[in-house]
Amino acid sequence: MIEVHHLKESRSRRITWLLEELGLDYTVISYDRDPKTRLAPPELQKIHPLGKAPIVRDKDQTLIESGAIIDYLIRTYGNGHLAPAVGTSDYNRYVQFLHYAEGSAMLPLLLKLYVSRLGEAGAPLHPRINGEVANHFGYLNGELEGRDYFVGDSLTGADIQLSFAVQSAVRGAGREAFPNLTRFVDMIAARPAYQRAVEKYSE
Amino acid sequence: MIEVHHLKESRSRRITWLLEELGLDYTVISYDRDPKTRLAPPELQKIHPLGKAPIVRDKDQTLIESGAIIDYLIRTYGNGHLAPAVGTSDYNRYVQFLHYAEGSAMLPLLLKLYVSRLGEAGAPLHPRINGEVANHFGYLNGELEGRDYFVGDSLTGADIQLSFAVQSAVRGAGREAFPNLTRFVDMIAARPAYQRAVEKYSE
Repeated sequence: MIEVHHLKESRSRRITWLLEELGLDYTVISYDRDPKTRLAPPELQKIHPLGKAPIVRDKDQTLIESGAIIDYLIRTYGNGHLAPAVGTSDYNRYVQFLHYAEGSAMLPLLLKLYVSRLGEAGAPLHPRINGEVANHFGYLNGELEGRDYFVGDSLTGADIQLSFAVQSAVRGAGREAFPNLTRFVDMIAARPAYQRAVEKYSE
Repeated sequence: MIEVHHLKESRSRRITWLLEELGLDYTVISYDRDPKTRLAPPELQKIHPLGKAPIVRDKDQTLIESGAIIDYLIRTYGNGHLAPAVGTSDYNRYVQFLHYAEGSAMLPLLLKLYVSRLGEAGAPLHPRINGEVANHFGYLNGELEGRDYFVGDSLTGADIQLSFAVQSAVRGAGREAFPNLTRFVDMIAARPAYQRAVEKYSE
């Protein structure tokens, strides 16, 4: 049985959504954040030395990093669904977006979150951070011009991996700022597998 | 011919190092940073709408994201070198570190860089950022206990992808803080392919 170690109020939703899309059996072990530091609790270090979620255990493997976990689950259980065939140019685009989501797009959103804790003292950084948000999500919005998915013409792991950053950006910027990304967020919310993941583990 | 679009004083070194390890012919197009903003110049947007380096063009592909570029080059030109066989547990570990380098390990280093621009005003964030640096690079240091490479017993793309974050952390923390990572940095500096990459494009 696949185990998902899930931190409440975190990015783990992507993994349970993917497992629902794949129709796999899995179990979720949920952890509360430390109420003071908002960090993951020390119990997670028993599962992986880094002590961060999500962590997936399957067979003899303990895996971290959402992009690597999504790649692993689709490679192992996808039976040709949710990813293009290896060796095609769509596959290269798929791997690129698997990396881009956390390797680039999340950075300005996380900078914004951290710097917001400084209040007015952080103001000198706001123009640079806002410029990077506009650049990254303007780029992603352009990539969805005239298409529903980031790779090919059906859902792939790249859409699932990008979902958290795109949902966060649309929530922050409003529904009018990036119209194609708003359409993408609505598409996700309408998927039965996503709805099942939300219902089962609402936090 | 493989084209590398390279921004001076950036993370592109990993790509030219990998191309030297693979013994491939390539050409480098180098860009200066904007002297005021320190951002990439607008000419890069003609190559890719995001306007960020490194960008690799090969055949009909234009690829961004260092992890995806390394994955692509080794998959296409590696002939079984520099990556474990697909389907092995080492391969899962390899993909994990390809993602982890920019998806997680770079975040506290980039936070530190941004927040340093605020001077004393950023002090409330320093303990959290320093704690995250210690956690991530303590974890990586532990992963190299008794071994020379992050995956298996020879150099892989995972080592190349992790190199920039590890070199930055050792430079920032000093050679004593993470002894296994210091050994790793020295191993990189001694590789002829790395030395060739440094000599050809020193910036």
